[in-house]
Amino acid sequence: MREVVIVGADMTPFGKHLDRTLPGLGGDAVRGAIGDASAARADIQAVYSGNVAAGSLTGQRIVRDLGLGGIPVVNVENACSSSASALHEAVVAVGAGVHDTVLVIGAEQLTALGRGPLPLNRDDHEAANGQIMPAVYAMRARRYLYEHDLTPADLAAVAVKNRSHGALNPYAQIRTTTTVEEVLASRPVATPLTLFQCCPNGDGAAALVVTATPERFSGPPVRIRASVLHSGRFETGFRDMTTPQITVESARDAYEQAGIGPEDLSLVELHDAFTIAELLYYEALGLAERGKAAALLHSGETTFGGHTVVNPSGGLLAKGHPIGATGAAQVVEAVWQLRGRAGDRQVGGARIALTHVTGGGMAGVDHGACAVHILERNAA
Amino acid sequence: MREVVIVGADMTPFGKHLDRTLPGLGGDAVRGAIGDASAARADIQAVYSGNVAAGSLTGQRIVRDLGLGGIPVVNVENACSSSASALHEAVVAVGAGVHDTVLVIGAEQLTALGRGPLPLNRDDHEAANGQIMPAVYAMRARRYLYEHDLTPADLAAVAVKNRSHGALNPYAQIRTTTTVEEVLASRPVATPLTLFQCCPNGDGAAALVVTATPERFSGPPVRIRASVLHSGRFETGFRDMTTPQITVESARDAYEQAGIGPEDLSLVELHDAFTIAELLYYEALGLAERGKAAALLHSGETTFGGHTVVNPSGGLLAKGHPIGATGAAQVVEAVWQLRGRAGDRQVGGARIALTHVTGGGMAGVDHGACAVHILERNAA
Repeated sequence: MREVVIVGADMTPFGKHLDRTLPGLGGDAVRGAIGDASAARADIQAVYSGNVAAGSLTGQRIVRDLGLGGIPVVNVENACSSSASALHEAVVAVGAGVHDTVLVIGAEQLTALGRGPLPLNRDDHEAANGQIMPAVYAMRARRYLYEHDLTPADLAAVAVKNRSHGALNPYAQIRTTTTVEEVLASRPVATPLTLFQCCPNGDGAAALVVTATPERFSGPPVRIRASVLHSGRFETGFRDMTTPQITVESARDAYEQAGIGPEDLSLVELHDAFTIAELLYYEALGLAERGKAAALLHSGETTFGGHTVVNPSGGLLAKGHPIGATGAAQVVEAVWQLRGRAGDRQVGGARIALTHVTGGGMAGVDHGACAVHILERNAA
Repeated sequence: MREVVIVGADMTPFGKHLDRTLPGLGGDAVRGAIGDASAARADIQAVYSGNVAAGSLTGQRIVRDLGLGGIPVVNVENACSSSASALHEAVVAVGAGVHDTVLVIGAEQLTALGRGPLPLNRDDHEAANGQIMPAVYAMRARRYLYEHDLTPADLAAVAVKNRSHGALNPYAQIRTTTTVEEVLASRPVATPLTLFQCCPNGDGAAALVVTATPERFSGPPVRIRASVLHSGRFETGFRDMTTPQITVESARDAYEQAGIGPEDLSLVELHDAFTIAELLYYEALGLAERGKAAALLHSGETTFGGHTVVNPSGGLLAKGHPIGATGAAQVVEAVWQLRGRAGDRQVGGARIALTHVTGGGMAGVDHGACAVHILERNAA
C-alpha cells in the first residue's frame, strides 16, 4: 500500500441550516477542500461520500452541481461513522493504486427530517424496547459513576471543557461556555444525562482531498498513518457496558498500524455524543487507566496546555453532530490543527492526531461501526 | 492488484416476502453463499453490503444475527447499483491485499416501505417535475421508436423474451410466459410502456464470497476479470436520451480491463428495468450497432441457443428488482451459469459473463451510478 495523505480539507460551520439543501452544504465543503489543495476538477478521480438520512445518491447529488461528473461515486452509510468509513474506503483505493486522488465528503442535514419521530425498522428490537441512544448512554453513565464512586458533576465537567473549546471555534454549533451548575440544572433527558450533556442535532458538511501524489497540490500534506474500521460483536447476557469493546479493538489496531501509542498523541477528536462517552473513550483509547478517566479530565491534561488535547474543536457536545458529516469533520479539524491553522483553538506543537467515531452501538452491544484514523504532520 | 475470484454465491427467490425482515432475507443469502464456499465464519474478514431503502447499518443488522461480528462492515448505497458497487469496493480491498476473503451482500425489502408515496428530497428537481423512472424511460422509448422506425410491439418482444427466461428460473418473481399481444394490452403506465414492460417491485437478497485465496474454499472459483463503477455527467440542454453514456463508458472500461470484447460474451445480465432499457443497453454494451437492437432481439441471438444470451435469469422484468439486491443477484446468476449449475435456464458452454446495473439516471442525465462486471469460468 502506498502512503496516503490529505492535501485539502474544509467544512461548513455546523448548525441549523434550515434554508440550505444537502447538495448546497456538501458543495460548500467540496469547493473549499478542492480550493485548499489547489486541485483542478480533473484531478479528482473518484468520490467517497458519507451520509445517513438524506436518501439515495447523495454523493452524486452533491458533486453533480459542481460539474464533477463521469467518475465513480460511492455512497457509504455507517451511522455516525459514515464519512469516516468513506475516508477508509478512499484510503484503501488510493493506497492500492486504484486512484491517485479522490474526494471524501461527509454531509448531513438533520433539520430536513422535521421534528416528528423517525419510523422504526421492524427488526430494530433495541429501539423498540426503548434503547435509544440517550437511554443507552444513561445506563452506561449510571454504571460508570457507581463503579468508580463518581458523581454527575464529574460528567458535567466534560461538557464544561468541550463547551469552553467550542467557544473558540467559529465552526461550532454551540459557541458559549457553561458551568457545572448550569449543565446539571439543564433539562433532564435520561438521568443522569441532562440536555447540556447530549450533543445537539444539526446540519453540516466536510470534505477532504486524499492523494498519493501530494507534490501535485499546494495544500501542506498531512499523512494518514492509520485507517481502521471495525464493527462489533453481538452478545447477549452479561457484559460490561462501560467498556466499548469496538473502540478498544479499533484503537489497538490503529496504534499498531501507525507504530505509535496513546502517549504520542498531541490531540484527539473523539465521539463525545454524551458526556459519559468521553470518559469511556479516554479509557478505550488508552489515554487513561480503567476508572481513571475523570481524574485525567480534572488534571487538565485534555484541555489546552495539556499533554493530549481532547476535542479541541468542542467535540460533538459543542461543535455539533450532523451524523454523516461528523467523521470527516473531525479529520478536517485534525488537518487544520496539524497544519497550525486552527486559530484561537490551536493545539501548540501539534504533531500527531487521532480521530474516533463510533455509531450504532446499543446497550453495550457493539454491532455498529467504529472508525479510528491517526494523522501526522508532514516532517518537512 | 491480485486476481480476485468468487467462491461462494447464493440468493433468495425474489418476490413479495411480506412476512420476512431484511436481516432475515439477507441472512438466508449469506448462509447460502458461505455454505456454497464451505467457508467458516472466521474466514470472512470484512463485509460490503448494498441496500437503498432500509435505513442505517443494514449490513451490520444482517450479519449480527449470524454471529459475524468484530469485522469491518461497509454499507454502500448507489441506487440500483448499490450491491454491484459493494462488490466493486470488495474487489478493490481484496485485490489490494487489505483483506483475503470478504462477503458481499445485496438486500432490499421494498414491500416494507408500504404503498404510499415516498417523500421527495427537496433538491430532487427531476422527480419534482414528474421525471420519475417510468416517465423517463417512456420518453426514451418514444424517441427510440421514432428514430428507428419501430413500434411498441418491438418493445413488447423484450418482455416476451425475458418472461420466457424467467419462467425457467425458480428464483424469479414472475414465472409465467406472455405474448406480445398480452404485453401491449396490459395496463398503461407511461405510454408507450405498459405494466408488463416495467419491472415489478419486490424483496430479495443475494450474497457472494469474494477471495484472493480460492484454494482454501470448495466452491469452483469464478474469476472477476473486470470491475468498473462510473457515475455520470450532469448536462443541460440538448442531449441524446437514447444513448446511455454512463453505460457506454462503463462497458468500454470493463472490456479494456478484461481484455475482451462484446463478441466474447456467452451471457449478459443487464438492467432491463423497462423493455426499452434492454434495447438501449444492447447498443451501449456493444452487442448491437446503433439502431439495430430490435433486429438483434428478433434474430434470436439473445435468447437460449443464441450467441450471447441476455438475461437468462429473466432479468429485472421477470426475475424482479429489489433495488439493492439486484446487482449482487446478477452476479450470483452469472456465477451459477459459469459453473454450469443454472438448471433449466443453463446457457450452454457459458464461459464469459457480463453483468450491468445502472441507477439514478434521469431524463438522459446520467448522474447516477453504473457498475459493470465481467466474470470468467475458471480454466481448470
